[in-house]
Amino acid sequence: MGIDHKRIDELIEKERKVFLADYKKIVESPSISSHPEHKKDIEETARIAREFLKQAGAEVTVYATKGNPIVFGHFHYSDNAPTVAIYNHLDVQPATKGKDGWTREPFTFTEHEGRFYSRGTTDDKGPAMTAFWAAKIARALKLPINIEFIWELEEEIGSPHFMEFLEKAKTTIKADSILVSDTIWIDRGKPSVTMGLRGLLTIIMKLQTGAKDVHSGVGGGAARNPLAELIAVISQCFDAKTGNITIPGFEKTWTRISDEEREHFVQSGFTVENFKKALGLSHLRYEKLSDVVERIWAMPTFEVHGIAGGYQEAGVKTVVPPQGEAKVSFRLVPPQNPDEIFTLFKNYIHKLNPDIEVIKEAVLAPYAAPRDLPLRNKIKEALHFAFGISPAEVHEGGSIGAVASMDKILQKPILFMGLSLPSDGYHGPDESFAWEQIQGGVKAFVKYFELLTQK
Amino acid sequence: MGIDHKRIDELIEKERKVFLADYKKIVESPSISSHPEHKKDIEETARIAREFLKQAGAEVTVYATKGNPIVFGHFHYSDNAPTVAIYNHLDVQPATKGKDGWTREPFTFTEHEGRFYSRGTTDDKGPAMTAFWAAKIARALKLPINIEFIWELEEEIGSPHFMEFLEKAKTTIKADSILVSDTIWIDRGKPSVTMGLRGLLTIIMKLQTGAKDVHSGVGGGAARNPLAELIAVISQCFDAKTGNITIPGFEKTWTRISDEEREHFVQSGFTVENFKKALGLSHLRYEKLSDVVERIWAMPTFEVHGIAGGYQEAGVKTVVPPQGEAKVSFRLVPPQNPDEIFTLFKNYIHKLNPDIEVIKEAVLAPYAAPRDLPLRNKIKEALHFAFGISPAEVHEGGSIGAVASMDKILQKPILFMGLSLPSDGYHGPDESFAWEQIQGGVKAFVKYFELLTQK
Repeated sequence: MGIDHKRIDELIEKERKVFLADYKKIVESPSISSHPEHKKDIEETARIAREFLKQAGAEVTVYATKGNPIVFGHFHYSDNAPTVAIYNHLDVQPATKGKDGWTREPFTFTEHEGRFYSRGTTDDKGPAMTAFWAAKIARALKLPINIEFIWELEEEIGSPHFMEFLEKAKTTIKADSILVSDTIWIDRGKPSVTMGLRGLLTIIMKLQTGAKDVHSGVGGGAARNPLAELIAVISQCFDAKTGNITIPGFEKTWTRISDEEREHFVQSGFTVENFKKALGLSHLRYEKLSDVVERIWAMPTFEVHGIAGGYQEAGVKTVVPPQGEAKVSFRLVPPQNPDEIFTLFKNYIHKLNPDIEVIKEAVLAPYAAPRDLPLRNKIKEALHFAFGISPAEVHEGGSIGAVASMDKILQKPILFMGLSLPSDGYHGPDESFAWEQIQGGVKAFVKYFELLTQK
Repeated sequence: MGIDHKRIDELIEKERKVFLADYKKIVESPSISSHPEHKKDIEETARIAREFLKQAGAEVTVYATKGNPIVFGHFHYSDNAPTVAIYNHLDVQPATKGKDGWTREPFTFTEHEGRFYSRGTTDDKGPAMTAFWAAKIARALKLPINIEFIWELEEEIGSPHFMEFLEKAKTTIKADSILVSDTIWIDRGKPSVTMGLRGLLTIIMKLQTGAKDVHSGVGGGAARNPLAELIAVISQCFDAKTGNITIPGFEKTWTRISDEEREHFVQSGFTVENFKKALGLSHLRYEKLSDVVERIWAMPTFEVHGIAGGYQEAGVKTVVPPQGEAKVSFRLVPPQNPDEIFTLFKNYIHKLNPDIEVIKEAVLAPYAAPRDLPLRNKIKEALHFAFGISPAEVHEGGSIGAVASMDKILQKPILFMGLSLPSDGYHGPDESFAWEQIQGGVKAFVKYFELLTQK
């Protein structure tokens, strides 16, 4: 047997009006998590999501946290059936008409030439609704599977209370595996599945060498300069031109990807041209495709994000400042452990300059989907079924906080099935999501659910 | 013959009331040059200064510039007599009661236990008035000398129009030598004469590598980091721990002071303890007296004053910024030429990283009093006469813009006779000047005038 396109298309067509009414309702709720004045909208979005799930027949729990709530839904088929959990987030980035390139009302849902416009259409309410509609169709088709939904409302601010939710919900969540649907394809017609995420370790280095500004004519030469000392140690951590990290021992904490993986990256449809255009970069450290993809997806980095202290305004003010603060970070790759890397880094810095205070700010473990996982092939098969194209295996260079947390607490395989396109305007102006991605996405989820019911 | 203390003391006593009324009048005019709203007070101070000079019998010209005026006065004795010009400034630093430690009304002149309080009492209106009163006494004593006064009103903002004044006045200024009275003794009872000033070269380095912030998870590894590249070149310019400059060829542009000069520095009364206390520094690059004084007075420095760009606020934001700007400077020593050092630096930076824009901001040439000048001994003799102590020969680590300009345009020997004490609160709160420094100062100036009339 097996599900066919025709059957799903019929079900989608039948429900299309309802789907779009739901979609409109949830995207028009301006759930901007970074703005405290939208707290009520966050609550309203959670309420709408809860109603959707309840009306579709799910058991729903809204988990309160010290921050925003998490909506957890469970479509129960049978205790003996497999269970999959799907993670999406329902909070959005800020958006204002006339600002940052927005030409539309950001929270008015409109359709134009097969695209739906509004903040949140693609990141991540559209994919969330797509998975939800797929679950409704799976129910209509009586697929023997339990489906859970984890809908977060703090993803855009770094998931500060997601761990709190997981600690509360970990015995309730029954999933055998987790599917995260918040990633972006390489391009239209070029689906991809994320097989790994880089981790993150952010660090602040502080150095105080005085009590007040010292005139560089009066004290310069004898007075220590905290900015200079911070710069000296930073420059001994990496090569700014190649990006290679030069901290002794660091090279032993990770290994490069295999030639096979690199080949997947190269064949993914990623182009250096598009990458540069999208990020507004005219020159890169590397211009060769295989170098670029490996550097951004599968190699650790050391970055300097800012040096605070001293004089920042126009011109030059010749003071030796009393203190300085360097904001730096590592992107990490499996099997690097952020806490171990922090210790390695801190010891190295203290060897170079014991006066520098080294503070761990945030850590996110890197994530790699187990390479031999049968689920990998099911994801790929589902996407191929839906879109007619075999997806490329890629990595994401960034970190998803919720993934690191779920990996740690739930200890189940985590897979990725994103639907957004680079042209959708993730975090950008006039955000949109195409009907073809919704339609294909519903098929991909339904097919994946079906594949999960098979051994 | 020769002037004696008694005679000068009598003349001071006779004029004391007039002196203090003048002093009160000029310091109570809040001539804050950095605040445009005090422009009228600047004009008023110039008017007061002009009246003082006129009433004392000088020919006065107030030179207008594109900025604040310069008051030039000339006490003529005879065309055949020697001429000395005395430079002071009559503008002051900002001051507000209750702010930055001010407990007094900053522009109310008060006397307490032999000290006069008000902004400007010691920097630099007090020394200016002291020299002026000495000139009046010299006139009363009929000393055969012409005395010129150059009173600037933009010193505290870097003398931006002083060069404009000099170009206009250079044929009018008849001085055979110039005496600058705007420096600070080592300590009470420890007079010093400045024999050299360090020069200054301030530079901005700009690097643009992108058009907008790039998320370090998305582009990090392939994207260039302008802060990292700036840090890399800065760290190749000097050793942050020793302060030694490591730019190839730089070592050939200067030489260390002689053992004799170093010994003068060490014997000057300067103490590392007081230096650290005054500047709020608990640890220095060097703790040995001879090292400290040589580093701050007679060695070049390279400083980083700030790195603009990227993220400066609390925590860490993991963006790779599109641009960065480093604010750096050199303090220079004779015979270094700031323009030549700039070329050396720029070529070196461009060799390391041709994309960095290197911009010269400001230059001030270093200055050294000619070592064989007979005037040196006259200054020392005058101070010894007045205070009973032989002054130490020191350098100043800072630069005085007007000195570099006068050296360039007037090409006459420039000497220094300061009267302020470290405890007077130069640029600090509750600024004051002691009567003993005024009284001694008048004697020192009068004696110096007398010595100038002798071969």
